[in-house]
Amino acid sequence: MTEKAFQDYYSEKFSHCYGCGRKNEHGHQIKSYWDGEESVAVYEPEPYHIAIPGFVYGGLIASLIDCHGTGTAAAATYREQGRAMDSEPALRFVTASLKVDFLAPTPLGVPLEIRATVSQITPKKVVVDEKVTANGKICATGQVIAVKMPDSMLAGKEPQSR
Amino acid sequence: MTEKAFQDYYSEKFSHCYGCGRKNEHGHQIKSYWDGEESVAVYEPEPYHIAIPGFVYGGLIASLIDCHGTGTAAAATYREQGRAMDSEPALRFVTASLKVDFLAPTPLGVPLEIRATVSQITPKKVVVDEKVTANGKICATGQVIAVKMPDSMLAGKEPQSR
Repeated sequence: MTEKAFQDYYSEKFSHCYGCGRKNEHGHQIKSYWDGEESVAVYEPEPYHIAIPGFVYGGLIASLIDCHGTGTAAAATYREQGRAMDSEPALRFVTASLKVDFLAPTPLGVPLEIRATVSQITPKKVVVDEKVTANGKICATGQVIAVKMPDSMLAGKEPQSR
Repeated sequence: MTEKAFQDYYSEKFSHCYGCGRKNEHGHQIKSYWDGEESVAVYEPEPYHIAIPGFVYGGLIASLIDCHGTGTAAAATYREQGRAMDSEPALRFVTASLKVDFLAPTPLGVPLEIRATVSQITPKKVVVDEKVTANGKICATGQVIAVKMPDSMLAGKEPQSR
């Protein structure tokens, strides 16, 4: 794995995301890394990230797939262009489409591993396929279609203080 | 609309969900109601449910679609069976598949309305189509394929105290 997470390269303005922003003290602050051709993130849900007793809330799993997907899309694009992740102009992606298949109930109380591969990369979009495992068993698979961030979002105002 | 939300009929054991459980003080506690043939929920994201400055985090939108979808699946099944929602045996659904298309950036700071219709209902699954609007504009559409809760989840242990 690389030492610095994809998300740690995001500028301060783009580091407030509830799923992966290092500046969001309320959020999940997930960290994604390369592991060869795959990217990986590990996240242990909080006890209150519950669906029903003993199992993880599906919305959290969707959230992890979403943020790990957009982070992987950016990292893969830098890599394809032969650029360092701290080079300019910065590349940021948003999710155009998110699909999650829940294959088995996901146990609460253990770390979840989210692994992704990039199945398509074009100048406009990146398709990322993911799987979420707990205790070595695949609990969910997902796909994120990530697109370059639109200008309307890049021009957004600064966040309110929390 | 009906007076009592779908989620308010869930037994205590099944009221801890981070998305819609009335007993989860950390969670979203969304409330879904019938409005004719559609179901509707309204949720105003917190300032920290941010993606980038000014816009809502997509994982939250996926979560709202997820929980509103499973709640609607249960309510629609009770309705189709001509049963009151507090009648036994209780019907609970989980998400087999979740799909979200993000059509436009979702502004932060206004209530989001989630509306759903049931496009398919069989003994084993319910397909729920949804749209999320902010300021009257559709920001996302989604589909939940909800299935009857498996026995392995129904037999889950009680949640830890938080």
